[in-house]
Amino acid sequence: MNHKMIWYIIGHIFKVEAAFLAVSFVVALLCGNFKILNILGFLIPIAALLAIGFPLTKKKPQNRNFFAKEGFVVVALAWILMSLFGALPFFISREIPNFIDAFFETASGFTTTGSSILTNVSEMSKGLLFWRSLTHWLGGMGVLVFVLAIFPGQETQSIFLMKAESPGPKVGKIVPKLKVTARILYGIYIAMTLVEFIMLLCGGMPLFDSAVNSFATAGTGGFAVTDVIGNGGFVAGSASNAYFEWVIGIFMILFGVNFNVYYLILIRRVRDAFRSEELWVYTGIAASAVALITINLMNMPTRLYATFGETLRHSFFTTASIMSSTGFATVDFELWPTFSKAMLVLLMFIGASAGSTGGGIKVARFILMIKNGLAELKRCISPNQVVSIKFEGKPVENDVVRSTNGYLVAFVSILAASTLIVSLDSPFLDFGSSFTGVLACLNNIGPGLGKLGPTQNFAGLGYVSKIVLSFDMIAGRLELFPVLLLLSPKTYRHL
Amino acid sequence: MNHKMIWYIIGHIFKVEAAFLAVSFVVALLCGNFKILNILGFLIPIAALLAIGFPLTKKKPQNRNFFAKEGFVVVALAWILMSLFGALPFFISREIPNFIDAFFETASGFTTTGSSILTNVSEMSKGLLFWRSLTHWLGGMGVLVFVLAIFPGQETQSIFLMKAESPGPKVGKIVPKLKVTARILYGIYIAMTLVEFIMLLCGGMPLFDSAVNSFATAGTGGFAVTDVIGNGGFVAGSASNAYFEWVIGIFMILFGVNFNVYYLILIRRVRDAFRSEELWVYTGIAASAVALITINLMNMPTRLYATFGETLRHSFFTTASIMSSTGFATVDFELWPTFSKAMLVLLMFIGASAGSTGGGIKVARFILMIKNGLAELKRCISPNQVVSIKFEGKPVENDVVRSTNGYLVAFVSILAASTLIVSLDSPFLDFGSSFTGVLACLNNIGPGLGKLGPTQNFAGLGYVSKIVLSFDMIAGRLELFPVLLLLSPKTYRHL
Repeated sequence: MNHKMIWYIIGHIFKVEAAFLAVSFVVALLCGNFKILNILGFLIPIAALLAIGFPLTKKKPQNRNFFAKEGFVVVALAWILMSLFGALPFFISREIPNFIDAFFETASGFTTTGSSILTNVSEMSKGLLFWRSLTHWLGGMGVLVFVLAIFPGQETQSIFLMKAESPGPKVGKIVPKLKVTARILYGIYIAMTLVEFIMLLCGGMPLFDSAVNSFATAGTGGFAVTDVIGNGGFVAGSASNAYFEWVIGIFMILFGVNFNVYYLILIRRVRDAFRSEELWVYTGIAASAVALITINLMNMPTRLYATFGETLRHSFFTTASIMSSTGFATVDFELWPTFSKAMLVLLMFIGASAGSTGGGIKVARFILMIKNGLAELKRCISPNQVVSIKFEGKPVENDVVRSTNGYLVAFVSILAASTLIVSLDSPFLDFGSSFTGVLACLNNIGPGLGKLGPTQNFAGLGYVSKIVLSFDMIAGRLELFPVLLLLSPKTYRHL
Repeated sequence: MNHKMIWYIIGHIFKVEAAFLAVSFVVALLCGNFKILNILGFLIPIAALLAIGFPLTKKKPQNRNFFAKEGFVVVALAWILMSLFGALPFFISREIPNFIDAFFETASGFTTTGSSILTNVSEMSKGLLFWRSLTHWLGGMGVLVFVLAIFPGQETQSIFLMKAESPGPKVGKIVPKLKVTARILYGIYIAMTLVEFIMLLCGGMPLFDSAVNSFATAGTGGFAVTDVIGNGGFVAGSASNAYFEWVIGIFMILFGVNFNVYYLILIRRVRDAFRSEELWVYTGIAASAVALITINLMNMPTRLYATFGETLRHSFFTTASIMSSTGFATVDFELWPTFSKAMLVLLMFIGASAGSTGGGIKVARFILMIKNGLAELKRCISPNQVVSIKFEGKPVENDVVRSTNGYLVAFVSILAASTLIVSLDSPFLDFGSSFTGVLACLNNIGPGLGKLGPTQNFAGLGYVSKIVLSFDMIAGRLELFPVLLLLSPKTYRHL
């Protein structure tokens, strides 16, 4: 393995993280927080990241051999280290006194999961709340994509980095040059975040809240800055903020769309954009889920919500939140009938589109799996017939199908193993709670069901559970393989 | 499609079912049940099956073209029709007054699921209880395998029939001639059932109980004839019958082993038999599960069972029962800690060995999936390296891996869709109950968790749920594809 190259890239990442920490530090000062521990909480990690980052990036390595394996290792290592350093402000300021809790919260931020161990969010200082939400924003599009966009890099190494960090079964190079692709992606991302921010401001949301809610929506993260309904709730479910709910709901859906679609619209190839198979399946699933849940909620013996409009709004918001893997909650869907809850669990599995900021198995993979299942059925009926699969109008290569299946196996194995460990370590959880809690972390959603549902939080879990779930969040965000690779002894054989 | 051939085979199956019904009728008479409705309950279906069966099998069809598609259709159709006719004795005798309930119970019997809608098993007449358990025995090894063993058949059609009915990713032909294979399988099956029967008798179990419990164990079915602890309990959990629990527990494990292993032992190729990879993984998983559950139960703050011996026995029996997909219960494992319950859910997924009478995804498939996942990880690291998978010492062909993955997709899709329908139709179930209930039916186990757990039964479900679950049981027993094929409109296009 090319160690020098790996640490060179990690050095760049450290510098980026220091910059984002500095921004949060400025916000903390602007908000008037001059407590010594809080100031140290920012300054120490900034100093440490720069002190390590600069020497590492001083000289570009001679040996530029860089392959898939190195790409995976860099990405996995970078995300773990980022979360470790990113946890320091919470820990040093004593606002999260336990380091494992602080690490969990930061990993939950960067991976855009949004599961929280905070029992009283509104007591946290503004600067730290800002940093917490900013991790969502940086993690949403990917820190390596950011590095690619701003630092000088090589094409050969970049493709492997992007492959390892981008969500979905295939990497969509928008334009031939990866650096330009990364810039376009971040351009769209910044523009959309700004539009949401302005729309929330115009609706009367305070400046700070508009910013952090926009970060959390853009990264499909889900950290709330108020705890009206537990760790997920960002605003009370009253009629007065229906506007905010619709705006954020729609943006959650929008950030769950493959960004290639926006690029195509941007270059006026609107017809191509709307020909995307994944886009239609994604919106189709979302629309069906909203319709079915609304009908289900309207047919309850005693209705939870007064009017059809309110029911539709809650059903839309929750569907958008779960499917895009954001995890915001405006209502306690634990009270919903089992059918609606089962729909939500299904949406948790499917997740958002490939190439979006959302998590989950991804709609593209879901389509590939269903098509492969149907093709297999055809092959069973007529063993001699050649059956091929098409996606987005193009035939799918065999290795994409195979790697999709490999992904599913890895996913199910991690889900099962984590559920076992969490239920052993935190025995107060029932099976449904530990299963959906792990699922919510692995798919970067946030709240699960039952005792890890929207009005609950992850504070009461054992420390082993918190470490396992932090691992699951990072594994889920990086599409499993990079983190599994880091665990494999073979990786270190030829060190 | 070759309709004549399809109906010719179904005719044979009808005659076999009539013969088994006749045996149960004799038992009913021997037990002194001369109620007119009970007598009619047996005579009407016997007469109907013979009246249809004989004309259908009168002339062997000229056109003997018979392919995979026909094989699937015959098997799916046969199992549905067998369950419809097999339900008549319960329905006509009014002992199960509703036909859907009777159909559910019979499908549960043939598919060796063992889920019951009976709330008071001990009130049912002996003849019907015998028939109910006999369906397990016939369904366990497969009715078509039985037909192959006793009726004259052709090799070309037989392989497709066996493929469609045998559990596991590949069909193991023990000897080149399929008819001989079928006879060997049934020979081993009968011998093992007899040994268990005698061992139970010797321990002091009454004749009738020994017979029905042996049928239920051999088929890995799980219907109980007493309801000491709900629909699953066959004997009270007191120390006096520890012997029965050990005997039945060991036989459940034995019937979950691939029957090829027994054949190899029979022909004195013992070394080959114990070289089976699946055998070791199967016993390894079972042993680990017993150990972990025992430790977990011993570490509970207030112990459920007095001694280590008792804890071990319950843990062994329940693991054997769930993993072999039998579903007998001697204890209410709903009271166990979440870790143990999560272990049981994992065992529900994995199931027994391919080529056994047990259900589930099967250990062989499980091994293939894990190996494929690992191979995919390797391919990710070194994209240019050729990675191949071996199973039982032989390289696995690509299409076996692909069909295993296709199976997994079909499995997850049916699981998700059924959970949604059941939770809509039976809203009193919580998510965990409806999910594990569907899983228990689809994998032919019997009891799920929560409101469909071992001390509960399926009586309270809505009729739509019961029909869906009956479908799931048959789909699960036939490894999904045959039943899915029957639902596909394309199957009927060239009728």
